[in-house]
Amino acid sequence: MTETQDPAAGTARPSRRALIGWGGAGLALGAAATGGAMALATTGDGRSAPDAVDFHGPHQAGIATAVQDRLHFAAFDVRTDDRAAFVRLLKEWTAAARRMTAGEEVGDGAHGGLPEAPPDDTGEALGLRASRLTLTIGFGPSLFAKFGLADRRPAALVDLPHFPGDNLDAARTGGDLCVQACADDPQVAVHAIRNLARIGFGTVAVRWSQLGFGKTSSTTPDAQTPRNLMGFKDGTRNIAGTETGRLGKFVWVGDGDGPAWMTGGSYLVARRIRMNIETWDRASLQEQEDVFGRDKGEGAPVGKAREHDAPFLKAMKPDAHVRLAHPDSNHGITILRRGYSFTDGTDGLGRLDAGLFFLAYQRDVREGFVPLQRSLSARDALNEYIQHVGSAVFAVPPGVRDADDWWGRTLFAKEA
Amino acid sequence: MTETQDPAAGTARPSRRALIGWGGAGLALGAAATGGAMALATTGDGRSAPDAVDFHGPHQAGIATAVQDRLHFAAFDVRTDDRAAFVRLLKEWTAAARRMTAGEEVGDGAHGGLPEAPPDDTGEALGLRASRLTLTIGFGPSLFAKFGLADRRPAALVDLPHFPGDNLDAARTGGDLCVQACADDPQVAVHAIRNLARIGFGTVAVRWSQLGFGKTSSTTPDAQTPRNLMGFKDGTRNIAGTETGRLGKFVWVGDGDGPAWMTGGSYLVARRIRMNIETWDRASLQEQEDVFGRDKGEGAPVGKAREHDAPFLKAMKPDAHVRLAHPDSNHGITILRRGYSFTDGTDGLGRLDAGLFFLAYQRDVREGFVPLQRSLSARDALNEYIQHVGSAVFAVPPGVRDADDWWGRTLFAKEA
Ligand code: HEM
Ligand code: HEM
Repeated sequence: MTETQDPAAGTARPSRRALIGWGGAGLALGAAATGGAMALATTGDGRSAPDAVDFHGPHQAGIATAVQDRLHFAAFDVRTDDRAAFVRLLKEWTAAARRMTAGEEVGDGAHGGLPEAPPDDTGEALGLRASRLTLTIGFGPSLFAKFGLADRRPAALVDLPHFPGDNLDAARTGGDLCVQACADDPQVAVHAIRNLARIGFGTVAVRWSQLGFGKTSSTTPDAQTPRNLMGFKDGTRNIAGTETGRLGKFVWVGDGDGPAWMTGGSYLVARRIRMNIETWDRASLQEQEDVFGRDKGEGAPVGKAREHDAPFLKAMKPDAHVRLAHPDSNHGITILRRGYSFTDGTDGLGRLDAGLFFLAYQRDVREGFVPLQRSLSARDALNEYIQHVGSAVFAVPPGVRDADDWWGRTLFAKEA
Repeated sequence: MTETQDPAAGTARPSRRALIGWGGAGLALGAAATGGAMALATTGDGRSAPDAVDFHGPHQAGIATAVQDRLHFAAFDVRTDDRAAFVRLLKEWTAAARRMTAGEEVGDGAHGGLPEAPPDDTGEALGLRASRLTLTIGFGPSLFAKFGLADRRPAALVDLPHFPGDNLDAARTGGDLCVQACADDPQVAVHAIRNLARIGFGTVAVRWSQLGFGKTSSTTPDAQTPRNLMGFKDGTRNIAGTETGRLGKFVWVGDGDGPAWMTGGSYLVARRIRMNIETWDRASLQEQEDVFGRDKGEGAPVGKAREHDAPFLKAMKPDAHVRLAHPDSNHGITILRRGYSFTDGTDGLGRLDAGLFFLAYQRDVREGFVPLQRSLSARDALNEYIQHVGSAVFAVPPGVRDADDWWGRTLFAKEA
């Protein structure tokens, strides 16, 4: 399993879930002495947390990282036109993200022990493990209309066109920036987004957010492929986190691809895709398998026996999802999918509000999602059972190199 | 850890996640032969699934059962006045629940292999473990207005009064019946509710549902107490699943408590309690600790050192939550709490729609939740930071005794 975002980027950081910051060192020692809940806390002795993913590296973690089980995704709007204040926030966020992904509390205990101050950390993740938390930031097209950044907007970050069938809810669409939090424990992912929102109070505000309760894609082909809410294995043919070659070709922005500040970054398309679960559940097994061009039990392509057998596209119905989405039908287009299943209760008509929160990373949106979705939205048999109800696109800057670096430096730093 | 709802009730059932039902035995064998995803499937050889909770017993599982990590809760409305059809559904649901809690697919493969038919199971949990799934059914007050059941409604199942501060959303309140699905894997809990809804199509419809992403209560005092979204340990003082004496006194309906059909059952109050997270996060540590009467790091009562030290109520502020909720302030009232944290995105004002989905079991609602909440809603310091926005109450019938028994038999069977 890949625990760092780049196999070459080094090993996991030590975890020490600091107790200071609440009630001071006396309490912290008292609490630690009781063991139990605090058994995972270390005291900076450099012991590695086996479940921490390195925050630093040439690329942000959370893209090629082996897909974690749970997601909390938030899109934010900027509420200031003070560039310096926004940069200050990015630095504060980076420090908090660095700590949280290492399994530590937010804050260094600077005002720990001061009961008059709000705690540095909201606390609900205390005693939990790092749970492979990754935090990935992205900048939306609308951000570039602010802070005099218009000429720095990458051409690859296009506004998505309207696709046939789109029924987008403005309240779940767009955003000046986003943070994708993935972790194996949902409380850890929720905690991270909430603390970033808290730190950002006054400067940014959450525009929308989405909880994903189960991964639908895998970037580790040897692992069991998860199933989506239609009951099919999802993520069979994807880019693996270890395939440096294909990552470089299809996911990471290369030198000369566009503005230098994006080199090592990627582009993220997020789509909230609702499934018409009730109709799907009444479709016959044959129809369901025809829609995808794979069988339901094993996940094998039509006419093949095993999930990972190479698909023979011509054996599938012309409008089968896999046939239409396959690179061979799209001049080689390849994206890295990282979506999650969601269930958000029930709509006014007693139908489950459930589906796929689709997340795809690519080197250029114009050569990834846009042409692929143009083709799918026009012809895919799946369209009878789904509806795209939310949409956003983000430029995901390169990784934070080291302890002095910060999210967005290549875009915002004066010298950059 | 308690894996059955009653320590005396026997051991976990064997799990065999049947593959038949999709594509017939040929495919099933093919798939099984590949190992991998199907490694957990057994073929009815009686091997125990270590993570299955017994569905059968004198009480329903999911009450005294060690609290699982995730929740999917659904309230249903009845859409028929045909009693026989409703009873048929209860029997079908029981069979499906029996299979799913054992880690099996819904359906016995009766129309497996018929590609013209919809699959018996929606499939997204195939390859997952039983994950300690429990399914617990309850009957709401409104059900007793139907099917000529008026005279069988227990007096202990009162309509909840309006409490000060209640701001209930009708779309998240009430329900003719409910199913609580708890499991250590959210996909397993979601799958279970969805398949019950599918089976019930036409007879019942989901009125509202709630996903809980993290438990806030524990019924295993030796385990680490989980934290709620306010960052406090929640569930410290609760009834343990092994405390047969207190369960009998406070949770299980006894002989002579009311209608005989409820003996061995319990009453469930569900409240969707939203937290004003943003305000809470800006409150000082001192204020936060005063609100509960416990410290945040360790969870110890005011003036004490350890979480499980006996609270000294007079040391707490008069309006501290724990002081007001403690049995000593309420003539001994004791309930079994089993709540979950939720996060359902953001409201129109950019605030997290997050909080506690409070679930409490008791022997009599008139002597449990109602007087307790009367006291809390009038005085609790916590009220500044929370709002009750959804509410429901259910009579939870006794357990399903064996393979011939079914949910609600004691209420619906002619001879009962
Ligand atoms: C609710 C919506 C969707 C569902 C349920 C879904 C499901 C699936 C499934 C079951 C597969 C086959 C297994 C696999 O290789 O992963 C698949 C493949 C794929 N899907 Fe989707 N998908 C959805 C939307 C989309 C969208 C919007 C796109 C891109 C615009 C997309 C692109 C792909 C690609 C590129 C493949 C791999 C094709 C191949 O190389 O064989 N999918 N999808
Ligand atoms: C969002 C709302 C609530 C939150 C955040 C909350 C939180 C807590 C916390 C942190 C404790 C202390 C630890 C423990 O013993 O579990 C506690 C105790 C307790 N709470 Fe709540 N609670 C909430 C609502 C309620 C409601 C509505 C009731 C009942 C009407 C209730 C009844 C109790 C009881 C009985 C105790 C144990 C008191 C004792 O025996 O010491 N709580 N709660």
